[in-house]
Amino acid sequence: MEQWWREGIPLVAAMHARIEKLDGRELIVCAPLEPNRNHMATAFGGSLLALATLTGWAIAKLLAGETATHVVIQRSQMKFLRPVSGQLRARCQRPDEQKKERFTSSLTRWNRARIDLEITLYSDATLAAEFSGRFAALCNTGYG
Amino acid sequence: MEQWWREGIPLVAAMHARIEKLDGRELIVCAPLEPNRNHMATAFGGSLLALATLTGWAIAKLLAGETATHVVIQRSQMKFLRPVSGQLRARCQRPDEQKKERFTSSLTRWNRARIDLEITLYSDATLAAEFSGRFAALCNTGYG
Repeated sequence: MEQWWREGIPLVAAMHARIEKLDGRELIVCAPLEPNRNHMATAFGGSLLALATLTGWAIAKLLAGETATHVVIQRSQMKFLRPVSGQLRARCQRPDEQKKERFTSSLTRWNRARIDLEITLYSDATLAAEFSGRFAALCNTGYG
Repeated sequence: MEQWWREGIPLVAAMHARIEKLDGRELIVCAPLEPNRNHMATAFGGSLLALATLTGWAIAKLLAGETATHVVIQRSQMKFLRPVSGQLRARCQRPDEQKKERFTSSLTRWNRARIDLEITLYSDATLAAEFSGRFAALCNTGYG
């Protein structure tokens, strides 16, 4: 997935974003401060938003699997709690079974599904921001 | 300001963001699709969020002037309305006199002020997303 990101999304390559952890429970994506800093030597808000978007999108994409041709973000909210002066880290838990089932059955039945995901952002290990995103998956049915 | 962005924020340089228009009424910041695309050849959501953040931040910074040492984003919301397949453009109107006065007098009096700004995003000339951001300006009083 990391290679796919870097090839498909130049900004992700510019951010030097990489997967720190991906298991059955969660995904953690991190990026060094230097390419993501602002003039105050803390993380640029836009970098934090981009990292959160990428992380949520990846979880939605993993959930949709090969079924969906498109996974897109529909809306987002972010609360910036404190400046990030260390490594940028974004963490998203995989949805529970019920939420997962609702998403995949909607995708199979209606060729579309959406899911709300919470992503927490850290400066190294310190909580720094909270992001909520709604992601939609769509199948190309050949009809539209 | 453009040069300051590029030097201070590497991601802005990577996005090739530049000021299209800045006058007494509004600021328009644009960026070409190529460095901001995703694997679907439309704009990466993270790029749109970063462009909106930058645009709102610039308006808040211009308003705060030399008085404020910090201008930061506190929260944001984004609605993605349609994919961006052309040039990315973000537009923010300068606040009206009343809003401006409230902001600058708070900054003078309390050494801090905040302002809510609306940024609209376009794919070339077509409306593509709506962003709301709350920005805070802080003076370094030497006390904290």
